Amino acid sequence: MSLTEEQIESLVRAVREQDNDSILRTTAGIYPADISALLHQLSPLESKYLIELLPPDMSAEIISNLEVNVRQELLQLFSPQELATIVDYMDSDDAADLLHELPLRTREEVLALLSPEQSNYIKDLLRYEPNCAGGLMATELIKANINWTVGRCIEEIRRQAENVRKVYAVYVVDDNDVLIGRLPLKQIVIAKDEEPIRNLVIEDVIAVETYRTGEEVAALMQKYDLEAIPVIDMRGRLLGRITIDDIVDFIVEQADKDLQAVAGISEDIQEDDSIWKLTRARLPWLLIGMLGGILGARFIGIFERDLAAIPAMAFFIPLITATGGNVGIQSSTIVVQSLAENTTFHISFWERLGKVILVALLNGLVISTVVFAFNIAIFNRFTLAVVVSLALFSVVILASVMGTITPLLLNRLGINPALASGPFITTANDLVGLAVYFLVARFVYELFPS
Amino acid sequence: MSLTEEQIESLVRAVREQDNDSILRTTAGIYPADISALLHQLSPLESKYLIELLPPDMSAEIISNLEVNVRQELLQLFSPQELATIVDYMDSDDAADLLHELPLRTREEVLALLSPEQSNYIKDLLRYEPNCAGGLMATELIKANINWTVGRCIEEIRRQAENVRKVYAVYVVDDNDVLIGRLPLKQIVIAKDEEPIRNLVIEDVIAVETYRTGEEVAALMQKYDLEAIPVIDMRGRLLGRITIDDIVDFIVEQADKDLQAVAGISEDIQEDDSIWKLTRARLPWLLIGMLGGILGARFIGIFERDLAAIPAMAFFIPLITATGGNVGIQSSTIVVQSLAENTTFHISFWERLGKVILVALLNGLVISTVVFAFNIAIFNRFTLAVVVSLALFSVVILASVMGTITPLLLNRLGINPALASGPFITTANDLVGLAVYFLVARFVYELFPS
Repeated sequence: MSLTEEQIESLVRAVREQDNDSILRTTAGIYPADISALLHQLSPLESKYLIELLPPDMSAEIISNLEVNVRQELLQLFSPQELATIVDYMDSDDAADLLHELPLRTREEVLALLSPEQSNYIKDLLRYEPNCAGGLMATELIKANINWTVGRCIEEIRRQAENVRKVYAVYVVDDNDVLIGRLPLKQIVIAKDEEPIRNLVIEDVIAVETYRTGEEVAALMQKYDLEAIPVIDMRGRLLGRITIDDIVDFIVEQADKDLQAVAGISEDIQEDDSIWKLTRARLPWLLIGMLGGILGARFIGIFERDLAAIPAMAFFIPLITATGGNVGIQSSTIVVQSLAENTTFHISFWERLGKVILVALLNGLVISTVVFAFNIAIFNRFTLAVVVSLALFSVVILASVMGTITPLLLNRLGINPALASGPFITTANDLVGLAVYFLVARFVYELFPS
Repeated sequence: MSLTEEQIESLVRAVREQDNDSILRTTAGIYPADISALLHQLSPLESKYLIELLPPDMSAEIISNLEVNVRQELLQLFSPQELATIVDYMDSDDAADLLHELPLRTREEVLALLSPEQSNYIKDLLRYEPNCAGGLMATELIKANINWTVGRCIEEIRRQAENVRKVYAVYVVDDNDVLIGRLPLKQIVIAKDEEPIRNLVIEDVIAVETYRTGEEVAALMQKYDLEAIPVIDMRGRLLGRITIDDIVDFIVEQADKDLQAVAGISEDIQEDDSIWKLTRARLPWLLIGMLGGILGARFIGIFERDLAAIPAMAFFIPLITATGGNVGIQSSTIVVQSLAENTTFHISFWERLGKVILVALLNGLVISTVVFAFNIAIFNRFTLAVVVSLALFSVVILASVMGTITPLLLNRLGINPALASGPFITTANDLVGLAVYFLVARFVYELFPS
């Protein structure tokens, strides 16, 4: 099971003291994933020392498990020769990811040091963007010709047992490598050796083309409860497979990105990043919010004379802007989620908008009524109460509509729609809210000068 | 592959016209998950008609795949007898989930209609909360005694092949059912029949106790790339297993919940829910925001005379509140993510806070300087510029600290920390921001009356 605090401490100490016996004793029987987690507490140089001491297959897995930024910092310390040794022990998809992260020159040097066969394999994978099906797939899999028997299939599994870590099914292809179907391992176990696999193959197999996005692959695997999905080229030839563990990582990363987009964080950061990096990730959206604030100040400035006459108007500025912000975030988040889940693709734009407006009417009515009552009870200024409630009602509707349209628009433009729930929309809503408030005020006070 | 738009339309039409031949023709060879997705477009009565026409194993899977609220509405139309037939064809975990959702009386009626063996199985599962390991597990699995040979093991797989849909490994137990280890299917395929499994078993197996939370299970499966994890009782006896497809669903649901918490949505809703449900989910947080706004109005009211003297003070209210809100959401989201990932558990509270304050100092310095420059350039009011920048600087620091402490506190109290990024904290930040702004103003204007 997982490392205990004491084990972690003693291992960290052993590495610092370069006590090789103790290191090897503590790491025996420990999962590579636990060692990856522990490298957070070691300097890159210490991490390198530890990794070089361990067996190369374990080192390869430890490095595969690291987060991108930790890995990049660490790998700067490795020579191309050392990198080639590690890559040699990696699964093809992890190897390609690692090479993607290296500077171009180092990448070429490492590729030159690999065996021609392996270097070709990896070069093939390097062509794909990391987050499409081609970039997510590994080439390690068990492939069987449709004309084989079960016994021949088992031979192939035995031959590749070392190479393919997880086997869920054998993929069945024709003489041209075109994917015909799959044969679950369970069927192979219970079938007779002399049975032709043609009789057993499940032809109804869900596969993806290399160009499909990670989101599409994740949605398919989630929908059909798949543990692996084969990847084919445009002619249907089998190229590789994507396993669910990589898709789980992908889903978690996407969820993080969405949350960061909503929170107005512009880089993928973590609490243990440097202060400089944390500041850099946060400042851009803060500055945009600030510009919005200054614009808002300019805008309110236009009404300086009204404010001097009725200073109480200023009281309700935070109420107006906050309500607009809250309504906007709610609306956009609902749209972002249904875009991500792809379940409601049958709703037309106008149905969607109609529904949003109805919900907004209800919410707006409740809020503006309650505020009106409070206003009369507490402040006892009738005209102002009318202005505030009218403005609130309009703001709820406008913010709902903007919050619904913006993510749809961003999605059309190929931008992460979650950005629509972030500070940008909040800032925009603030400005719209202020405009509505002061314009309503002008209008009402002209009708009913108090 | 997935249904085309035309297939969907023709199937919907066939159901409405009760054209059974056409329904059976269209659904042949279609995945249950696709039919589940399609039920969104049918009324509950139509859905029931379709489901009853299909083979019961397919019906069971279609119902398992439905979203909770759709399923609940649909199942109201089924008699206990009909429900029992469906439950009979379900995996144990899905059956338990379904029974959990039924009214208590119906649940008892359905249990009474099942075979005693199956009813006992399911009653065992019903004891657990749905989101702990016991509630997530299914009892279907392949179990082998440590004294068996590989051949005996294959016999067992053959016997259970129908019952256990996905087999990744055989779990090896001793005579008391205590989990000893696992034997991957791959090993079984390539081993000789007469080989004792004692020689092949991998004893180093990651298992969870029934009481572990879904989050813990998800974290383990993600970390160690598992496709299934055995569940044991306090004495180490094997009770069931959790497969990765259920954990993927769990992870996606959790991510949705986090996003909804940040957006201030209080129920799990989807765009195609009823207008009443959508309103109900959104209104609570809007009302809290509204109360905050009214409190803010009361607070600013204290300074009515200052505002009458210097109406320009009102200009910067949105800037102050928006900046506080943005900084607060950023800070809390960073903490929420590192709580969820559990990677930075070695950061102490004070280290965390120290770092947050340093980042806030940097951000605050940049923003207040830029705003100061703008203020002088545009509005040319020196004292007010000093007030605004001083207030902004303090707000950035206070909002950072509050945004960091609140999720940590909620987490300690066992509340979803993502709520800390939601409207509650934004509202609190608004009030703090206003307080700081007006107090700084009083102080500065008393020092330098303009």
